Amino acid sequence: MPSAPKILARQRVAQSTLFSVEQLELEFSNGTKRTYERLITSGGPPAVMMVPITADDKLLLIREYSAGTNSYQLSLPKGAVDEGESSEDAVHRELREEVGVDARKLKHLKRMTLAPGYMQYAIDCYLCWDLYPASLEGDEPEPLEVVAWPIAELDQLLACEDFSEGRAIAAIYLALQTQQRLQLNVNASEAGI
Amino acid sequence: MPSAPKILARQRVAQSTLFSVEQLELEFSNGTKRTYERLITSGGPPAVMMVPITADDKLLLIREYSAGTNSYQLSLPKGAVDEGESSEDAVHRELREEVGVDARKLKHLKRMTLAPGYMQYAIDCYLCWDLYPASLEGDEPEPLEVVAWPIAELDQLLACEDFSEGRAIAAIYLALQTQQRLQLNVNASEAGI
Repeated sequence: MPSAPKILARQRVAQSTLFSVEQLELEFSNGTKRTYERLITSGGPPAVMMVPITADDKLLLIREYSAGTNSYQLSLPKGAVDEGESSEDAVHRELREEVGVDARKLKHLKRMTLAPGYMQYAIDCYLCWDLYPASLEGDEPEPLEVVAWPIAELDQLLACEDFSEGRAIAAIYLALQTQQRLQLNVNASEAGI
Repeated sequence: MPSAPKILARQRVAQSTLFSVEQLELEFSNGTKRTYERLITSGGPPAVMMVPITADDKLLLIREYSAGTNSYQLSLPKGAVDEGESSEDAVHRELREEVGVDARKLKHLKRMTLAPGYMQYAIDCYLCWDLYPASLEGDEPEPLEVVAWPIAELDQLLACEDFSEGRAIAAIYLALQTQQRLQLNVNASEAGI
């Protein structure tokens, strides 16, 4: 791997309420110079995304208006980490606000990026299980629809055009793999292996 | 599902070379009004991302400088569809430019979004196999490193901090599942089932 390019200059070139665009002047180790643009974050911790799985093997999804695509989309609950919160605090709060449950068990799956070529954004994904009813008032403009989707029908979910978010598909696969391993460990430990 | 919010007003609020931010004034079906911001695309076809799999069961990844995270990242080859190209044309061209191979067989896996809440962007993912050496000059500032990663060591790949792109993780899982099904079909057809 070559050594990282030298940053010759950086400046904010566009700014809106939600987005900040930074321009980077880079010199690669072979001497090539290039100008890049990237979306930068405010510097707080990465957002969190949850894969809540019920005792009867269903994924708890939400259906929500998505302004980017101007359509209703099925996806996983997620949200930003508020000031003073840990990532785990945000997981519990967002589950209550968006899904109407909380989880006694959490497992961090992976810190994912969205498009590292031009976005600084990252998100921490969690498997959430041992769920119980719990709710908190959220700030959504209309109530979110919670959809309990049987894991046995994952193929049908993946075929839905309105279930399209790459990081959510990735998180579900990682969650199911992790859940299977945890179950194997429990079985092995019960069998005294 | 409620009916889609009414768009009361829309305007471009920030613009850089690469990014366009649009502000939407929305009225939800329950009467709630909200202002949203989203990143919009130029209106061309979605970009393409490829999962190239070799005859000896390796994923062909690339390692590339990523300005968003200011780090080298392992990911899948991908790129925009040029004017006048079909998505499949772009797949063949990008494979040649970024990986130094081309594919005799392609299968569309899924149209994915990145973050539909605030991005219009989508990407078409393809499984690519029956590969052969072929190359085209790309426009990268330095040569990309191609990394052949054994599918049998997928867990180790998923554990790499520098393999983090959600849509790439999703595409690999979808590709492996599709490949397995295609293989089952071939076996069934050879067995006359």
